[in-house]
Amino acid sequence: MKDTDRILLAHGGGGEMTARLVEEVILKGLGDACVGSLDDSVVLELAAAPGSGAKGRTAPTKATAQRIAFTTDSFVVKPLFFPGGDVGRLAVCGTVNDLSMRGARPIALSLAFIIEEGLEVSVLRRVVESVAEAAHEAGVTIATGDTKVVERGSADGLFVNTAGVGIVPDGVEVSLGNARPGDEVIISGPIGNHAIAVLAQREGLAFETVVKSDAAPLNRQAGALVARLGANLHVMNDPTRSGLAMSLNTISCASNVAVEIDETAVPVDSAVAFAAEMLGLDVFTLANEGKLVAFVAEGTAKEAVSVLAAQGAHPAVIGRAKEGRGVSLVTTGGGRRILEAPYGEEAPRIC
Amino acid sequence: MKDTDRILLAHGGGGEMTARLVEEVILKGLGDACVGSLDDSVVLELAAAPGSGAKGRTAPTKATAQRIAFTTDSFVVKPLFFPGGDVGRLAVCGTVNDLSMRGARPIALSLAFIIEEGLEVSVLRRVVESVAEAAHEAGVTIATGDTKVVERGSADGLFVNTAGVGIVPDGVEVSLGNARPGDEVIISGPIGNHAIAVLAQREGLAFETVVKSDAAPLNRQAGALVARLGANLHVMNDPTRSGLAMSLNTISCASNVAVEIDETAVPVDSAVAFAAEMLGLDVFTLANEGKLVAFVAEGTAKEAVSVLAAQGAHPAVIGRAKEGRGVSLVTTGGGRRILEAPYGEEAPRIC
Repeated sequence: MKDTDRILLAHGGGGEMTARLVEEVILKGLGDACVGSLDDSVVLELAAAPGSGAKGRTAPTKATAQRIAFTTDSFVVKPLFFPGGDVGRLAVCGTVNDLSMRGARPIALSLAFIIEEGLEVSVLRRVVESVAEAAHEAGVTIATGDTKVVERGSADGLFVNTAGVGIVPDGVEVSLGNARPGDEVIISGPIGNHAIAVLAQREGLAFETVVKSDAAPLNRQAGALVARLGANLHVMNDPTRSGLAMSLNTISCASNVAVEIDETAVPVDSAVAFAAEMLGLDVFTLANEGKLVAFVAEGTAKEAVSVLAAQGAHPAVIGRAKEGRGVSLVTTGGGRRILEAPYGEEAPRIC
Repeated sequence: MKDTDRILLAHGGGGEMTARLVEEVILKGLGDACVGSLDDSVVLELAAAPGSGAKGRTAPTKATAQRIAFTTDSFVVKPLFFPGGDVGRLAVCGTVNDLSMRGARPIALSLAFIIEEGLEVSVLRRVVESVAEAAHEAGVTIATGDTKVVERGSADGLFVNTAGVGIVPDGVEVSLGNARPGDEVIISGPIGNHAIAVLAQREGLAFETVVKSDAAPLNRQAGALVARLGANLHVMNDPTRSGLAMSLNTISCASNVAVEIDETAVPVDSAVAFAAEMLGLDVFTLANEGKLVAFVAEGTAKEAVSVLAAQGAHPAVIGRAKEGRGVSLVTTGGGRRILEAPYGEEAPRIC
């Protein structure tokens, strides 16, 4: 990107343009100040705490090293409230889920508000109560926070940032780069609901059935998979911005595998399918806020499905990983199409 | 606060009005979903990582429990660049400092951008490079991040959020509530520079001497104090929004002590004093971004001063804690005035 280029809305879509901005401007600018990976959260290995210099202490032994996961997300969804959720619920679920997708047990979140002058206190109160409710649901605490106010016209109502810390159990190695040829691919439920819920609310569209956001914490589902599948659980990811299409392409790329998805096997609620068709949107690119895609060792998909179902999810086996690169859809007609990573932004400010 | 009240700029000033908003709306709304304290960062005790259920593992022993500090801040400073720093440097220093004030060794930061559509890529690049430079200076890494874009007019150029994780060495107990009667109070250098630098830049004021922001990571100074003073180091705090007045009142309140400050002992650069007078601002309420105030056990102030001076600071002993409550200034004329916590906001969007 050139210095004189300007940031476009599409740079925030979570697709290829976001990836390019992050790669060419942010990661390049940070250089060796950055230790991050492609994953939405990073796993940090803590050496055992050294004593204060005044006390001295022996060197840490390997046995006491602990791993924590750490992540952040800002939420700029518009409107702030929509069927099935609001910016507060989203902010808790998004961060809990990013931690959970690394196999981590979330322990604490931060909560930072940027408020536009003039916001009604009742709005902030509703959002805070929703944060509390989602935090209870996930069993996580809000441990620290920050509040800033900017002049009228300098922000759009309310932006929320959450960061989170979780503990990665010993022996758990779940990351975007761990998929292997032969892996089976599972989705934990129907896709596209969150994006349609927000878009319909924003545009004032009324469909026969009100589509609700699926915003929900995934830590119990993820924790159950980790506990039951152990090393057979290779990858977990929550297909948020830019949807399942981005998720699968990111995994394909990070793991150096091809992914083949059976389109007929991917669950989509009929109201979501109808709305997406009306709006000219591909459900595979639509954001979800309470779904996970998992890659599990060959032969363990059935077990994974039963674990997720026991947690109240409606999972489906949707495909498998193979040697090669890229993501393809075996379409309902028996044809095949490439499922590319979305380029820009079809639905801005969805989260 | 009533539901029909609206948020004012003053609610973001870091003074009494911010405290009230946080108390009555945010903490009250969160209820038991929140475990935070008055401190800018929270200390979490990690039980040793349990193994995944598939593997089993014995219960953690007390010896392996580790403490981490966790904090967050959003930065909405206006303008983005000012003498001595910019929003990127501020975002790194602010979070490093919040961790350091708990005696923690910062290990990783997150970096989240909310960008207004239309921002020049060159601006983002400069900010990112400044983040990298400050991270190097502090010896901390950027470990995870997020990028959102909102439409033109929905944000003011660029907002930055950082969260941070640090390790609290064994035996270190530094917090706002640990001051004791008899403690000596130290400031690590002259106050007010950051606020004046930003205000002068924003208002286009030219003083004879350009005042530079003091934005700087404090982890080395804080680490040196922790190492040398051990349990004699009771409190550290960085007087940011609402300045030393807020800092001292918060400590007085949390520790249930009175604080008496010798006004003549508090270092203020002459250019800052002049500018503050011109602008009608009290230097005690002006934000600093690279200063720490410490409460140390009686008789250890000299040692603390020499530790800070060895780190390149220009510290001064400015007062002491006594039995009682509240903060008072012994003024240059030998009189005494109460130094109250600022109520609203004299200088909005200073960080």
